[in-house]
Amino acid sequence: MKTKLPVGILGATGMVGQRYIQLLENHPWFEVTWIAASDRSSGKPYGEAAKWRLDTPLPERIAKMTVSPAEPDAAPKIVFASIDAAIAREMEPKFAAAGCAVISNSSAFRMAPNVPLVIPEVNADHLRLIEEQPTRKQSGGYIVTNSNCTVMGPVLALKPMVDRFGVEQIFATSMQAVSGAGYPGVASMDILDNVVPYIGNEEEKMEEELLKLLGNLDGHAVKPLAARMSASCNRVPVVDGHTVSLSVKLTRPATREEIIDAWAEFRPLAGQDLPFAPAQPVEWTPLVDRPQPRLDRNRGNGMAVTVGRLRPCGVLDWKFTVLSHNTVRGAAGATILNAEMLMSLGKLEPVAAAGARA
Amino acid sequence: MKTKLPVGILGATGMVGQRYIQLLENHPWFEVTWIAASDRSSGKPYGEAAKWRLDTPLPERIAKMTVSPAEPDAAPKIVFASIDAAIAREMEPKFAAAGCAVISNSSAFRMAPNVPLVIPEVNADHLRLIEEQPTRKQSGGYIVTNSNCTVMGPVLALKPMVDRFGVEQIFATSMQAVSGAGYPGVASMDILDNVVPYIGNEEEKMEEELLKLLGNLDGHAVKPLAARMSASCNRVPVVDGHTVSLSVKLTRPATREEIIDAWAEFRPLAGQDLPFAPAQPVEWTPLVDRPQPRLDRNRGNGMAVTVGRLRPCGVLDWKFTVLSHNTVRGAAGATILNAEMLMSLGKLEPVAAAGARA
Amino acid sequence: MKTKLPVGILGATGMVGQRYIQLLENHPWFEVTWIAASDRSSGKPYGEAAKWRLDTPLPERIAKMTVSPAEPDAAPKIVFASIDAAIAREMEPKFAAAGCAVISNSSAFRMAPNVPLVIPEVNADHLRLIEEQPTRKQSGGYIVTNSNCTVMGPVLALKPMVDRFGVEQIFATSMQAVSGAGYPGVASMDILDNVVPYIGNEEEKMEEELLKLLGNLDGHAVKPLAARMSASCNRVPVVDGHTVSLSVKLTRPATREEIIDAWAEFRPLAGQDLPFAPAQPVEWTPLVDRPQPRLDRNRGNGMAVTVGRLRPCGVLDWKFTVLSHNTVRGAAGATILNAEMLMSLGKLEPVAAAGARA
Amino acid sequence: MKTKLPVGILGATGMVGQRYIQLLENHPWFEVTWIAASDRSSGKPYGEAAKWRLDTPLPERIAKMTVSPAEPDAAPKIVFASIDAAIAREMEPKFAAAGCAVISNSSAFRMAPNVPLVIPEVNADHLRLIEEQPTRKQSGGYIVTNSNCTVMGPVLALKPMVDRFGVEQIFATSMQAVSGAGYPGVASMDILDNVVPYIGNEEEKMEEELLKLLGNLDGHAVKPLAARMSASCNRVPVVDGHTVSLSVKLTRPATREEIIDAWAEFRPLAGQDLPFAPAQPVEWTPLVDRPQPRLDRNRGNGMAVTVGRLRPCGVLDWKFTVLSHNTVRGAAGATILNAEMLMSLGKLEPVAAAGARA
Repeated sequence: MKTKLPVGILGATGMVGQRYIQLLENHPWFEVTWIAASDRSSGKPYGEAAKWRLDTPLPERIAKMTVSPAEPDAAPKIVFASIDAAIAREMEPKFAAAGCAVISNSSAFRMAPNVPLVIPEVNADHLRLIEEQPTRKQSGGYIVTNSNCTVMGPVLALKPMVDRFGVEQIFATSMQAVSGAGYPGVASMDILDNVVPYIGNEEEKMEEELLKLLGNLDGHAVKPLAARMSASCNRVPVVDGHTVSLSVKLTRPATREEIIDAWAEFRPLAGQDLPFAPAQPVEWTPLVDRPQPRLDRNRGNGMAVTVGRLRPCGVLDWKFTVLSHNTVRGAAGATILNAEMLMSLGKLEPVAAAGARA
Repeated sequence: MKTKLPVGILGATGMVGQRYIQLLENHPWFEVTWIAASDRSSGKPYGEAAKWRLDTPLPERIAKMTVSPAEPDAAPKIVFASIDAAIAREMEPKFAAAGCAVISNSSAFRMAPNVPLVIPEVNADHLRLIEEQPTRKQSGGYIVTNSNCTVMGPVLALKPMVDRFGVEQIFATSMQAVSGAGYPGVASMDILDNVVPYIGNEEEKMEEELLKLLGNLDGHAVKPLAARMSASCNRVPVVDGHTVSLSVKLTRPATREEIIDAWAEFRPLAGQDLPFAPAQPVEWTPLVDRPQPRLDRNRGNGMAVTVGRLRPCGVLDWKFTVLSHNTVRGAAGATILNAEMLMSLGKLEPVAAAGARA
Repeated sequence: MKTKLPVGILGATGMVGQRYIQLLENHPWFEVTWIAASDRSSGKPYGEAAKWRLDTPLPERIAKMTVSPAEPDAAPKIVFASIDAAIAREMEPKFAAAGCAVISNSSAFRMAPNVPLVIPEVNADHLRLIEEQPTRKQSGGYIVTNSNCTVMGPVLALKPMVDRFGVEQIFATSMQAVSGAGYPGVASMDILDNVVPYIGNEEEKMEEELLKLLGNLDGHAVKPLAARMSASCNRVPVVDGHTVSLSVKLTRPATREEIIDAWAEFRPLAGQDLPFAPAQPVEWTPLVDRPQPRLDRNRGNGMAVTVGRLRPCGVLDWKFTVLSHNTVRGAAGATILNAEMLMSLGKLEPVAAAGARA
Repeated sequence: MKTKLPVGILGATGMVGQRYIQLLENHPWFEVTWIAASDRSSGKPYGEAAKWRLDTPLPERIAKMTVSPAEPDAAPKIVFASIDAAIAREMEPKFAAAGCAVISNSSAFRMAPNVPLVIPEVNADHLRLIEEQPTRKQSGGYIVTNSNCTVMGPVLALKPMVDRFGVEQIFATSMQAVSGAGYPGVASMDILDNVVPYIGNEEEKMEEELLKLLGNLDGHAVKPLAARMSASCNRVPVVDGHTVSLSVKLTRPATREEIIDAWAEFRPLAGQDLPFAPAQPVEWTPLVDRPQPRLDRNRGNGMAVTVGRLRPCGVLDWKFTVLSHNTVRGAAGATILNAEMLMSLGKLEPVAAAGARA
């Protein structure tokens, strides 16, 4: 690919916005040309508007870029979004109406029937739902979403089990990193030497998104996976990396080896050459005390999920632990991989009807 | 009570041993007169042998006390023990044979058929098992144990549910404090900015001890609770206080209010005036983001367990969070409360046959 | 004392306000009868207005008390204040004008020439400055302040050295707890696995307050200690307890023993029976790796300062480490001790001229 | 360079040993062909002998490599060492006698008069001292050392100040990461919610090594910098990255700009193309609250030191904060850079006399 496609970032100063900037620096296909944030930041150079919290330097080019107002007028045709649900509910449709491909990490439209909620390794076929969105015919624009950061690891680990053995009941208890709450997010007085056994709305999102992601596209809508699901969400003093204890009841019996094989052989994107797709999306670790967030969150450049501790469960069938990097695989990296998938499907090309945007 | 009963401590330099010393200072019934530890410490003043890790000063009197060898010869008749299982397996029977009441936090004999595993509020009647121990008839000595620190909170929270509604399935995921591993215990490199999803043997202990504690004394042995149980244990960067996410299937349906009432009305030791028994062993918190270890571990002087977040479970019936102080309620305080219970049952008095020890 | 004096709290919902409530519960002389906070909280029951962050339960009586608007009309004659400097600058004089003894932890007036900045063990005589305040003659009201939380430990440790040996140069590097920044205060993303080598305005406050506190009352004003002082302030991942590395140049040589003796014999309030005055305000620890915040912050109920590691300094004369509980000794407890001192000096009694408030 | 030079690692299972392995993977000049550790590990595959604690995967090739006994017989000619001082004192001379270039992170010989203690950007000329070592003439072997991890940042930041302005007094207070203590190292009970104001022998090492590193090679020995130096060392709950508060008295006055320029222009290795030499060894940050370990430790791939907060000091002249990655720049990376420097000086080539080893 000679010229890179220009992309914009909505919500560029937030934690996930910062990750977009970090991860897109040197991306072979996309180049950030437009960054937008709230009115408070708009008009300032990004380096001044944002309090950069990542451990790689803020790229000079971006530091000097002026933050645009969050309006579609000057936005490029591809927009990565990560904004509060309440604001997203108004703003993302405006961008879609203006002809943008809104590839979003926001939660506002994840459960909307005509909006794909997608993890490319799991349900790329759901992307066809964009054709159900009215804006698609009008301006060519549409909304695609990725999941909540906590559900990402479990869904990737469960997908090969669903395919091979069937999954009927799922029990998930999360231990989530503070970066998931953004910045300033969790107060240090709340988390040093502490666990907070509650994250607003998180259990509801985990339960419903998991079933939609593992569901089947049935004509014009997704039929969620027919499984019973229970999530308990906790915050722990970890910077990055969500750990989830999982237990499942299978439809057909499986041995430990069969499950490990299912993970090892799960390479649904093999051969597609998407830059952010890890070679091995689900990495099994035989070490007895792993996965651990500090040691495993960066596997596959933060895009691989690690599973370990597979053992029989006294209530359901099998239990194990899943670890994923919540702001890479679980957020910014997920959006970028969705964009790459859309690109490879030809959905980031101008559509015939899309004369609205030159 | 005019004169206090002399008590000894086996394993006095460890984390739980230190808690015995801290909690027994000013105890109205017991006075520490003998402290023993490994050969390495024996013969030294305690203040030199132990690296005191608690946030109250080491009592002067104890600091100067010489650490005795771990032999029953000079030990008082009541001995609080907290030593490694492998050593306890040899040593605790020796003390019992010598006529001591060995009231132990060690795990070695918890599952032995003729050794009571007791939480006074839950199964004080199991203490009758001491009469099944051969040493009891010979020297008067016996072994009584309290549970693993992690299972303590769940068992106290479950007991009133078992009594009123029946409990058939139990799902527990723990987030455990580092003090549970003793000192030096968990390396800081392993736990800063991290979660460790494995604690050796802990899940097995939790599962089997829970069922024995909630079981019924049936003639000469305990019939464990007939329930399915699954435990997943994790270490988190917290100093003190184990948090456990629980989910249960009940035999008879119960409303939220009925469960909260069951906890509120659970006061099985009311009127017995045991110094370490909290007025309210299970405290319900209506706050949406509690219990939390830093804020709730010291309720009831560390002897009360806090429950919160009761809500329906998508897989079983109800889920909630339990918090208990692992080195107080879950270890040293548990042993002391067992001793108080034995005292009030007259089991710390000399028995007729016990001529072996003057 | 039969009847307790009614006291009010300005800024009752903040971290220090919460400590006032915690520490005044069961105070033998004072009783909280009035709590005020910002407009947002005013009119609500305290239990609803405040997010209680302390590890003892919020007293029931206070939980139900209605938060008053921050106006002097209905306030009792003694008001403990801990509010933002900008607001304090307007509000504290209003209360003083209305006849209140404003005993404040706020920083607004600490350096005002006619406002005493006092630690009772160090410079109680500075309290005479209240007579220089115009409101004192008009309504009887006045303002008294205590120091910044970080300077408290160093000043208490330095006072006996200043008295016996003279101190000419002081070097202080702090490692401060997050509770010093209030709630929500420091973001967890900023402090987990991290150190922040900057706290706004803290070094300036430390330097100027230290010299005023150790200065002499010279007629109508304080002549600051004539010493060179340099402070470097850092935030570390600790909940409570400020640790300060200190190095000093003395006027007259002193041996290690003489310095330790100076600390041991420093009991300036002995015999005064102030409830919050610790028997030993500066406790020396001979342990090589102490003081430590987790282990030493609660000495003397959080009102004693711990010093350790006294050793020669290669640049100045001696260096050592000081630890104090920043929200007890360094804030709420300091205000309460100031109130007790004023009480014992008869400055909380009605003055002749003070007809303004019945 | 076509063929890589084979190198060995002494102490391969420790924290620094693991960093050698991590950092040498893909090194353009060196290839690890031999790894040795204590008798306990010897004979096992490395993957079994070591508990890998780094957040990148252990290279497969190394995992399978058998750990050799710590004997020079089969060792390659270049050996990177990081072992306990007591063991190093015996073992490193044995390897040097056998003709090895022992490039060591151990502390045993840092202060030996004929052993160079070197940071290539600071005092590469001290490497000439190897010619003073008897083994050099006999077998060609010698010992070269790098500094203690804590002193590394300060020395790099001070070097350009020494050169341009002269430095007469130095005050350093460290806040050190736990990885500096190795594994298991610091107990989590000692550091969670805590600061430990003591690290055995660290202050002494910092003081003497700093002066040797900044000293001048005078004939056959180093004349240490003639400055007064005082170090206070503290451990804080940080995984990697030592933060040091520094204050200095200069010989000749310097403005803030002159000091910042001195750092910016400090590029003593420019043009030498050493793979591990950072382009900018001392990076100045103008951000008011930086450097911070979590955000700045990885600058220059962990080999650059960050300085910030330059401001006047009330006791000496200037104060500032220095941050360096303690196990990269401060340990394994330092050894590797020393090896690269020796390589570029031709000191890793066989010497004429060195017939001892083919």
